[in-house]
Amino acid sequence: MIPVEHALHIIDGTVVAEHIKKVKIAKSLGYILAEDISAPINMPSFRQSAMDGYAIIWSDSTHYTVTEEAQAGDAKHIPLQAFEAVRIFTGAKVPDDADTVVMQEHVTKQDNSITITKMPNKGSNVRPVGEQVSTGDLVLKKGLKLNEAAIGFLAGLGIKTVAVFKTPKVSILVTGNELQKQGKPLKEGAIYESNSVMLKMALHRFGIKHVKVFHTKDTLKATKKSIKNALAYSDVLLISGGISVGDYDFVKEALGKNDVDELFYKINQKPGKPLWFGKKDQQFVFALPGNPASALSCFYVYVLPLLKKCSGYSDYHLPRIQAKSDTEFKNTSGKTLFLKACLKDGTVSILPSQQSSMLNTFATSNVLLMVPEDVEIIKKQDIVTCINLESYGN
Amino acid sequence: MIPVEHALHIIDGTVVAEHIKKVKIAKSLGYILAEDISAPINMPSFRQSAMDGYAIIWSDSTHYTVTEEAQAGDAKHIPLQAFEAVRIFTGAKVPDDADTVVMQEHVTKQDNSITITKMPNKGSNVRPVGEQVSTGDLVLKKGLKLNEAAIGFLAGLGIKTVAVFKTPKVSILVTGNELQKQGKPLKEGAIYESNSVMLKMALHRFGIKHVKVFHTKDTLKATKKSIKNALAYSDVLLISGGISVGDYDFVKEALGKNDVDELFYKINQKPGKPLWFGKKDQQFVFALPGNPASALSCFYVYVLPLLKKCSGYSDYHLPRIQAKSDTEFKNTSGKTLFLKACLKDGTVSILPSQQSSMLNTFATSNVLLMVPEDVEIIKKQDIVTCINLESYGN
Repeated sequence: MIPVEHALHIIDGTVVAEHIKKVKIAKSLGYILAEDISAPINMPSFRQSAMDGYAIIWSDSTHYTVTEEAQAGDAKHIPLQAFEAVRIFTGAKVPDDADTVVMQEHVTKQDNSITITKMPNKGSNVRPVGEQVSTGDLVLKKGLKLNEAAIGFLAGLGIKTVAVFKTPKVSILVTGNELQKQGKPLKEGAIYESNSVMLKMALHRFGIKHVKVFHTKDTLKATKKSIKNALAYSDVLLISGGISVGDYDFVKEALGKNDVDELFYKINQKPGKPLWFGKKDQQFVFALPGNPASALSCFYVYVLPLLKKCSGYSDYHLPRIQAKSDTEFKNTSGKTLFLKACLKDGTVSILPSQQSSMLNTFATSNVLLMVPEDVEIIKKQDIVTCINLESYGN
Repeated sequence: MIPVEHALHIIDGTVVAEHIKKVKIAKSLGYILAEDISAPINMPSFRQSAMDGYAIIWSDSTHYTVTEEAQAGDAKHIPLQAFEAVRIFTGAKVPDDADTVVMQEHVTKQDNSITITKMPNKGSNVRPVGEQVSTGDLVLKKGLKLNEAAIGFLAGLGIKTVAVFKTPKVSILVTGNELQKQGKPLKEGAIYESNSVMLKMALHRFGIKHVKVFHTKDTLKATKKSIKNALAYSDVLLISGGISVGDYDFVKEALGKNDVDELFYKINQKPGKPLWFGKKDQQFVFALPGNPASALSCFYVYVLPLLKKCSGYSDYHLPRIQAKSDTEFKNTSGKTLFLKACLKDGTVSILPSQQSSMLNTFATSNVLLMVPEDVEIIKKQDIVTCINLESYGN
């Protein structure tokens, strides 16, 4: 049995292969950028009017004759001479000969003549070529998580595809003879299988949409074969149940027979003590406890960071927040506790049902309050560490 | 021109219709539950062993004869008499006659006999029927956002479908003759169209996957017709550009001709001053500024709350956080400012490029720092209000 921080250290120490793919920008949401992006064009790529108004060659005169009109999107070349003005709109190309745009609010117009009531400085309201970005500028760095703003920005540069880090292929293997599918009345002694859909949803939320689910009977032979089949498909395999020390828990032995090397087994924590983690070449395997809330707690603390690491994140642990506890809680277990809790306005409340089989408490919690193994009591008003469960979605 | 808080008040005051649909639980991630859920079964539904060990009829004796074995999932009835024990595993059905489970660590075994070295209290390690949840209990309330834990819990209850609030059908109408599609070199005077993909990604992130995009030329006739077509498809229509006061901005007039009633137009804010919001029967329309960063800022502050409201959220504004500014910033505009900023460990830094056309600043910001219209200066160490942009994903 190892301490939590030691297990996290082992996750941190794993070496993951970088897998990169090119995707259309409209398919890149939530991925980590795997290349530096240099601007392929100037932004703006032409001298652009920043206002609705009149383009002129700046002079001491306040009287100009309006000769033409330049609308946004117009490509035509508009010649301009001294004391002439071109009616112009925001975003339109400023005529090559013009050096200044006078905003329409500072102009009075009569027929084709304008009088400027407030003369701007020479050069005003003309956005120079490359004002925002010049061709070749490094504009987005490798490692950035692509959100709607980054993708919109790429589109504005005319970029259609980008290199991103692939997310790993994940499969789930469910063990347990007592498990029954939804849809029929429960048989005597059976329970409905829920861990596969729970883990699938957790993976979906992170952005891994295609997840293959395998089931096995609780025999060594069947477990061994199912692990082999699941490994053939996956970069990361999550096994649910069968990792405790009961006579019918065959997962550990079956992993050994599939040449998956153990990196850790059993953590001094509650829930989730029997968590197993191992590696076979470039593949990783987690064997999670069968109790739903234990499995989910292990998912947040250990599995998700590894998945994020494999997906190109440099900051891959869920963020920790300091908060004030409004609940007194005793820890007589000598273990690190992960308590389902609710954080609001800097104050955290420990929720009533903490049993490892109770998932509904997780449904309403937004943090895991972490009680270190050597802390025997949390008093009201104590500052505690919480793991933020809200910020991992796409 | 109205103040920001007035515009938000108008959003708050909108009455939205509730649209409900039944979905399979595996398709319910991120939706708001539209019904109270009562447990259809007891959990556990049978007396369940909490340990690996031996089931007995409690007595003063420490010697018992092992007669049978009960594995998790076994349905068979196992008769048991005084001084007999049944080998049992975690999760298995406790024989009807047994009242206590002795954990295996407190037993020594020889052939078919066991000696109990530490006798537990009568009734120990037997989870009674309905210990977690009893049939009929209200277990999840209408209004809950369905996450992986809630969905796993529903699966554990054997529930296959749930009623959720539908998300609205959204379409985007893009205006602007200067806009060009990606894929070809930029024409003189043109810019690449980016708002549609940016808004689409923002909608995807919220969970609205099917978004129809319309384009129109900048004439009143074309704009009017495009709005009509787009309205035929959508519950919420987002129009990009054409809402300023230039001679070629036809959106406001075209909305009027489509009988969309104005709820507000122009907000005393920067960026995003020309934002227009209106309603036609049960449909809502936002006309967003054409500048990408202005449009996105308006999306976060006004559009997203309305979309969340339509999707059953009771708490629909992006959360506001108080933080300490590490930047000095002057506000001489008399407007409310939404500044792209980066919040870390309680300290917020205003990012350098705040122009309304610059999207890449948004790509690296995680909050919008809100400067009220009557605040002229933010000093270092001042406590400021930030809108959290990180927590709206699915």
